[in-house]
Amino acid sequence: MEPYQRRNRHFEDLVARRGLIWMGQNTNHLPTHPDVKRAMIAAIEDEDYHAYAPPTGLEELRRLILADFGVDDADVLITDGAIEGLYHACRHLIRPGQRMIATDPGWPWPEAFSRLSGAEVVALPIYRPEQDYKLSAEQLAGAVEEGGAGLIYLIDPLNPLGVGYSADEIAAFARIAREADAWLIHDCTYRHFAHDHTLAYRLYPEKTITTYSFSKWLGLAGLRVGGLMARPALIEMLSEGQPNSLGSNLVSQKGAIAGLRTKGEWFPEVNRIQRANQASIHDAVAPINGLDMPVYPSNGNFVVIDTGAAGIAPETLCELYLERGIMIRQAAYQSKLFADRFVKVSTTVPTEDADRFCEMLPDVVRAALDGIGRNRALY
Amino acid sequence: MEPYQRRNRHFEDLVARRGLIWMGQNTNHLPTHPDVKRAMIAAIEDEDYHAYAPPTGLEELRRLILADFGVDDADVLITDGAIEGLYHACRHLIRPGQRMIATDPGWPWPEAFSRLSGAEVVALPIYRPEQDYKLSAEQLAGAVEEGGAGLIYLIDPLNPLGVGYSADEIAAFARIAREADAWLIHDCTYRHFAHDHTLAYRLYPEKTITTYSFSKWLGLAGLRVGGLMARPALIEMLSEGQPNSLGSNLVSQKGAIAGLRTKGEWFPEVNRIQRANQASIHDAVAPINGLDMPVYPSNGNFVVIDTGAAGIAPETLCELYLERGIMIRQAAYQSKLFADRFVKVSTTVPTEDADRFCEMLPDVVRAALDGIGRNRALY
Repeated sequence: MEPYQRRNRHFEDLVARRGLIWMGQNTNHLPTHPDVKRAMIAAIEDEDYHAYAPPTGLEELRRLILADFGVDDADVLITDGAIEGLYHACRHLIRPGQRMIATDPGWPWPEAFSRLSGAEVVALPIYRPEQDYKLSAEQLAGAVEEGGAGLIYLIDPLNPLGVGYSADEIAAFARIAREADAWLIHDCTYRHFAHDHTLAYRLYPEKTITTYSFSKWLGLAGLRVGGLMARPALIEMLSEGQPNSLGSNLVSQKGAIAGLRTKGEWFPEVNRIQRANQASIHDAVAPINGLDMPVYPSNGNFVVIDTGAAGIAPETLCELYLERGIMIRQAAYQSKLFADRFVKVSTTVPTEDADRFCEMLPDVVRAALDGIGRNRALY
Repeated sequence: MEPYQRRNRHFEDLVARRGLIWMGQNTNHLPTHPDVKRAMIAAIEDEDYHAYAPPTGLEELRRLILADFGVDDADVLITDGAIEGLYHACRHLIRPGQRMIATDPGWPWPEAFSRLSGAEVVALPIYRPEQDYKLSAEQLAGAVEEGGAGLIYLIDPLNPLGVGYSADEIAAFARIAREADAWLIHDCTYRHFAHDHTLAYRLYPEKTITTYSFSKWLGLAGLRVGGLMARPALIEMLSEGQPNSLGSNLVSQKGAIAGLRTKGEWFPEVNRIQRANQASIHDAVAPINGLDMPVYPSNGNFVVIDTGAAGIAPETLCELYLERGIMIRQAAYQSKLFADRFVKVSTTVPTEDADRFCEMLPDVVRAALDGIGRNRALY
């Protein structure tokens, strides 16, 4: 991988590029509810931030997250973004030599964190039409049977593919985890965008850790607030030795509280817009030879476009789009086995931005095909 | 220790208590420079936070921190508060079975983090007049000789005692660390308040990690932004597997940038006020029988009051002050060996708040003495 310091400067150049359309990180670029901004600005005006926040989070925020999950027998630990919670869970719960079961494609960071704990990471291949581009219970059971499991990492809805799991599938995963006595991390970062969602916590409360993110549905990625939900005794245990024992950002927590309070009046429209964007992209992709959307509609705020049949490298498509002012993501970021197969496009952007993506698609594909010397009918 | 969830509610109750004077956590409660608030509010108004910040921090902030250290051959990693950087360094650099050398009194978290990495923590007793209430080179050399050292944790200025180390002392520590091939964490959280300060980095650049905090001098404790400074290759290494690989809070980073830009015109007055507060406390303590300030003036934004000769338990003093609306800290939070000896009082509060602390002192001491049945002359 490119050195971090160089990546940092590259990323900062992107951030500085005003007008760039962010469709690569599943971040939400739709305007924030004014109450959320007001709450954060008031916290700054009042200088609430001179003192630390309570170490495991503002009580109101913890309660509101539980209510949002519809759960009343669990507890919540607020973390500096859900990723810090994932880091902590992977570092705290896994013992050296244990196996961490994940998927390919998936999200790379929890695998990296588990390796830091001495785990052997087993990433099960799921980019397969015969299993609907998602983890199957048979596959998981087979992996557990083969070598056991210390931790199962389940992303649901699945970043990057947009699949979700049914209540029956979740029940099967929970059964397998229980039989293996494995921790089950249920990464629910994209839950709010799903057409349907079942919490594994309800079926396997004793060892399920559920993540909560404000980066995507509420659009606070740059504000670093999220959390973990689990049984009270487990949250108590996880509160020890967390990376930030001085509490999480107070201003962000106030924004998150305001976000949960206004969710009912604000979020449905956000989800309507991103689903309409998915539909526009689906319409734009359908007629083009060699392109395909394996999962549609997506349960996340993103869709995947398969470029394999067209013979176009995902990186090429991303570069061509970036030249034209739109950032999308190549498969390599989230897959080793299927790195040459797809790009991911995030859909929580204003309609006109998604429309620009769609309008550019034929040109971009033509340029990509020209680049590899393929001269054939686009449609 | 009390369960985390209960501690959390207790802390939140304190935060909710409007008018409480915070003199217990070395936080800075003097008014922020308007430019700092303006920069953060602008970042919220502009909704810059929808995207993640660059993974290792905003380039301008990294440059400004280096400039503030007066160092040009190092690099900086921005973290979610300096404590997250300390966590990461302790987790990343220590191997199981290695020894982590710290002091008692000191600051408990890096010891806890090192234990998570399997380290044996050796906390050297330093609350001793014969060694000026600080770590001596002989003491450190002896400990290293005895069983080696994987990591030496040097707090300078020292929280909670307020001592600082001279250039000669830092040179001796650096020599000992180099001979032992140990990592040296130089915790410089309180550097800005010091009368004099020498960076160990200059003498032992190859294995020194220096912390940078905005919680204390700039008063942004609740905003979670800080950093680590070290050689570029070491920062590159530490950038891997950090707890938050999605960047730190963008709004806080913008506030920190504005803080460093306005530091010259703002901070000297802050330091003048807190030093005057130290002097007032010193004057209030001096005439009272059995109380003593072992270190004065302090190089931090806090002072320690010894209550041992009076026979007053530090907890009693803290409780009596809390009843009267002022939070100060008992030694037990930062010392095992000298937990019955002192309280710590932070001084970055408005002059009138420090004056209230001073005015209350005779009454509080009288009440404490009454509580233990001692009836003797206060003065």
